[in-house]
Amino acid sequence: MPLYTGVVPPVVTPLNPDFTVDYDSFTRVLEHLIAGGVHGLFVLGSTSEVVFHDADTRKAITEHAIKVANGRVPVLVGTIDPTTDRVIKHVKIAEAAGADAVVVTAPFYTRTNQAETIDHFRYIKDATSLPIIAYDIPVCVNIKIERKTTVTLAREGTIAGLKDSSGDDGNLRYVLADMKDHDSFFGMTGSEIVVDSCLAMGAQGVVPGLANVDPAGYVKLWNLMQAGDHAGARAEQERLCRLFEIVWISTGRTSSGSAGVGAFKTAMRRLGIIASNTMARPQRALNDEEAARIEAILKSTGLLD
Amino acid sequence: MPLYTGVVPPVVTPLNPDFTVDYDSFTRVLEHLIAGGVHGLFVLGSTSEVVFHDADTRKAITEHAIKVANGRVPVLVGTIDPTTDRVIKHVKIAEAAGADAVVVTAPFYTRTNQAETIDHFRYIKDATSLPIIAYDIPVCVNIKIERKTTVTLAREGTIAGLKDSSGDDGNLRYVLADMKDHDSFFGMTGSEIVVDSCLAMGAQGVVPGLANVDPAGYVKLWNLMQAGDHAGARAEQERLCRLFEIVWISTGRTSSGSAGVGAFKTAMRRLGIIASNTMARPQRALNDEEAARIEAILKSTGLLD
Amino acid sequence: MPLYTGVVPPVVTPLNPDFTVDYDSFTRVLEHLIAGGVHGLFVLGSTSEVVFHDADTRKAITEHAIKVANGRVPVLVGTIDPTTDRVIKHVKIAEAAGADAVVVTAPFYTRTNQAETIDHFRYIKDATSLPIIAYDIPVCVNIKIERKTTVTLAREGTIAGLKDSSGDDGNLRYVLADMKDHDSFFGMTGSEIVVDSCLAMGAQGVVPGLANVDPAGYVKLWNLMQAGDHAGARAEQERLCRLFEIVWISTGRTSSGSAGVGAFKTAMRRLGIIASNTMARPQRALNDEEAARIEAILKSTGLLD
Amino acid sequence: MPLYTGVVPPVVTPLNPDFTVDYDSFTRVLEHLIAGGVHGLFVLGSTSEVVFHDADTRKAITEHAIKVANGRVPVLVGTIDPTTDRVIKHVKIAEAAGADAVVVTAPFYTRTNQAETIDHFRYIKDATSLPIIAYDIPVCVNIKIERKTTVTLAREGTIAGLKDSSGDDGNLRYVLADMKDHDSFFGMTGSEIVVDSCLAMGAQGVVPGLANVDPAGYVKLWNLMQAGDHAGARAEQERLCRLFEIVWISTGRTSSGSAGVGAFKTAMRRLGIIASNTMARPQRALNDEEAARIEAILKSTGLLD
Repeated sequence: MPLYTGVVPPVVTPLNPDFTVDYDSFTRVLEHLIAGGVHGLFVLGSTSEVVFHDADTRKAITEHAIKVANGRVPVLVGTIDPTTDRVIKHVKIAEAAGADAVVVTAPFYTRTNQAETIDHFRYIKDATSLPIIAYDIPVCVNIKIERKTTVTLAREGTIAGLKDSSGDDGNLRYVLADMKDHDSFFGMTGSEIVVDSCLAMGAQGVVPGLANVDPAGYVKLWNLMQAGDHAGARAEQERLCRLFEIVWISTGRTSSGSAGVGAFKTAMRRLGIIASNTMARPQRALNDEEAARIEAILKSTGLLD
Repeated sequence: MPLYTGVVPPVVTPLNPDFTVDYDSFTRVLEHLIAGGVHGLFVLGSTSEVVFHDADTRKAITEHAIKVANGRVPVLVGTIDPTTDRVIKHVKIAEAAGADAVVVTAPFYTRTNQAETIDHFRYIKDATSLPIIAYDIPVCVNIKIERKTTVTLAREGTIAGLKDSSGDDGNLRYVLADMKDHDSFFGMTGSEIVVDSCLAMGAQGVVPGLANVDPAGYVKLWNLMQAGDHAGARAEQERLCRLFEIVWISTGRTSSGSAGVGAFKTAMRRLGIIASNTMARPQRALNDEEAARIEAILKSTGLLD
Repeated sequence: MPLYTGVVPPVVTPLNPDFTVDYDSFTRVLEHLIAGGVHGLFVLGSTSEVVFHDADTRKAITEHAIKVANGRVPVLVGTIDPTTDRVIKHVKIAEAAGADAVVVTAPFYTRTNQAETIDHFRYIKDATSLPIIAYDIPVCVNIKIERKTTVTLAREGTIAGLKDSSGDDGNLRYVLADMKDHDSFFGMTGSEIVVDSCLAMGAQGVVPGLANVDPAGYVKLWNLMQAGDHAGARAEQERLCRLFEIVWISTGRTSSGSAGVGAFKTAMRRLGIIASNTMARPQRALNDEEAARIEAILKSTGLLD
Repeated sequence: MPLYTGVVPPVVTPLNPDFTVDYDSFTRVLEHLIAGGVHGLFVLGSTSEVVFHDADTRKAITEHAIKVANGRVPVLVGTIDPTTDRVIKHVKIAEAAGADAVVVTAPFYTRTNQAETIDHFRYIKDATSLPIIAYDIPVCVNIKIERKTTVTLAREGTIAGLKDSSGDDGNLRYVLADMKDHDSFFGMTGSEIVVDSCLAMGAQGVVPGLANVDPAGYVKLWNLMQAGDHAGARAEQERLCRLFEIVWISTGRTSSGSAGVGAFKTAMRRLGIIASNTMARPQRALNDEEAARIEAILKSTGLLD
């Protein structure tokens, strides 16, 4: 059995206007996700604005999420920082807080190769007993965790699974095929818009940022695919694709990073889940005009009357 | 008068085989540089493996450098981390330690645009009274600090100068021209191999990693250019270019990052300046065969008999 | 009804050892594809080494293909060259030869933007009565034909369909959704390894280079998807993915271009379809050792006993 | 002695409003350049919109230039097309027309590696007795001709020189150093804005598109550098840098390609050298507002009263 399966959203971190974490809103986000039927929670991912938070804040976020989840679903914790030993510090904090697994990218800012990427994961494995999930996100870290690297690490037991945010679904397919005889391995796609495709290929899970806005939609999509209802799944995926258009509302005025997570926060504010759409500095929050356009999409996709 | 001028090397951080900082070697590096005649020290830059070190270690490195320098030359401190408020924490530590200026990149891992990059520097300026030097290094942070962004920040007084490691010398030239009427502004190139060119364009300084190996060479080059001896400068630059070939010895086996700083460390070990060529994890140190090839280059460029 | 649907392989152009086209082998390739059940032929695509052939050779290739096809399936003709008016010359030749449609990329070598890309297609439309298929292949032409560009051109009738070799399946999905109410529009994926996914999203066709080696496999995959047999389609797709591994056998020794088409030719030679695996200059043909490894894959995927 | 030295502009190809070549204007461009003192002419380069012209037009352009030059200066001819044997056809036409040398890029559209790039040049060398100049322009062809490739080809006599439009001046410096003992080899920079730097490094020539607007300026700069007057050269280079700002006037509305050559043409029209600023399709010509801004720059840099 794969260690984790299903819908495991990267959880948005709501902020107060003074840029501190809004824990009341955060509780509501977590309950909203669990109520939506998600199978796990991934805190401190890119969507959580992880690299904007220092170690103390990350610790508090992790502890809060674990306390709220209270064993109802597993809590995976991103331990994202540029280099090996700094990641290990975050891993130890996550482990002490009771995380179920840690999610680790390749090093960044520094330029490493595949061999050093393998060493990076092995050093981290030596430092923890938690399962490690490799997080392949070249758009942020500037290097791809190649198929051969992933499979080497997975077969030797260094990593338990893969979160693939590379956009290279064909490569994910090859990794899944290479690992077919390793029952506990799992591959999850980070894409919001080809979830049905990736599940049809055999991906064991999905990590969609947009599930912060509509967890029930992604759970429905998951269930339809589990039931083999490809037509139903496609229809739900296409509705979610229309909803996903919120992430491009602000592109141009803001960077793509701010536009995406900013849209999730703006939609969640409109849905009453969080109090503010504040973004961590130097990102810019979406403005009223952009919020109005997002509201229109929430209505046209059935999330608002 | 420009705030800083001259040769300001990014100082290598020597490590013990257990990956802790080797402060005895670090003292020798600093004395070696000052004895070579450098005009300033830039600690905690990319060459210093800054992103491998946590806040406590960075504090110790900064304090050590300032203590050793003891006012003989200014100490500029890199405060490099992915996002604004995390950078500000490093800035405050540097300020408390007595740094003369801080060196700040655009955000990384997250994807920001030019407007958010401007905000990033303004927020940091609000948090410190130290001069801020913008550090343009797209190969590490994935975004260029564009000419217009640099000039906006410089004219309004947010940044005091620019360290240009973008490789775009034409762009540097335009920035220098745009800022000609602002006497205190300075532009420094991070390149090792076109120092004469950049100084001939009017750059006020140079930040060559290779000066860790041969500070006197770069100081000689600087002095020749100050004296208007272009032919002499070119000859010295060409010798330093031959020396710079050490950075490609290990490319292929190691990443370009490890190959470059690893070569500096290996050469410095051979010259008796540092005790070990250990690299921060997951980077790989150069091996004996590579060290032998570096030794040959040290000999052919006059640094060893 | 979409203008074209189904499996439309980009047809390999067999060469003699002296680099002229081997028309006897070419006839066998075309018959092999038609016998395999393909729904159309795309000659002079990237897989056909189109940019290696001059106008006269392209004319002869086109005429030969149309004569052999003899109306059994439509013949689409790539008219690929760097700039608008040179493309128009190829379009007129294709039209005179009796092509059913032309396939056109964005300009290359020169750097155009989306507005100029739109003009490019409009100028070509003005010059021909043939249906134009936009060919999105940023890896070769260095610009993506963006969703909005494609939809603008499709809605106004400038292009009849899209061949998507960008690898961005999510974008293809949005184009298909945007064009849902235009019955004649069709979108085809150029990928070999996510055909089932793209068809499940609603793509009307597929243009797999690997179908030169195994047309019947792709036709089987198409038919299974038409019948709604997703499990069967996935199994066939996974077999084809194993076969597709031939394209990486030579990577490293040759460029990725030579490695891919070179692998198709080497497999087709082993299957007795073509006489030589010669590649157009300066590409390098696969060698005997590589051919042996390809043979092993042909056996393990059921194409050879 | 290097085979060619000095200022060798890539010659703009003036077009009539119907997109045919305006040979009267072309004659004036050539005379303008020769009168400005240039040391050679490079027709059919990127600045000449070479890839927009078919073989017949290229032949006519070449013959016209050679006739007008009439031996006063050498005429180098770009033979730029995607692949080896198509390039060879252009080379033979250039040779028949009396070209002094041909200028050849790496293959494009297709993806080749360094080994295949070497073969490409060798095959072309086998086909001509003309000197071959390698043209390194990765922004157009998507591959760099690496130092080792250039030096291999130069030492064995396949190429006579290098035109470097890669922007990597440090790499050019290493090539020049590697070839120091080969007297006939020459390296020329394609940059307009670091001519003084590249000449100070030892480059034997310069190929500035902007020299179409101000040939006398670049010849003056060349002469100052030959005389060792670095300060004078810098002042002239800085004036030319201010003039070069015309290339960014239209960026945004048009692509960077159209904006650059379009600016040269618009300036040349204003100076009375050519009749129209028409650009080859699908590029867009600069409009009146942009022309007015260019006129202002011509005035502020001394080219217009």
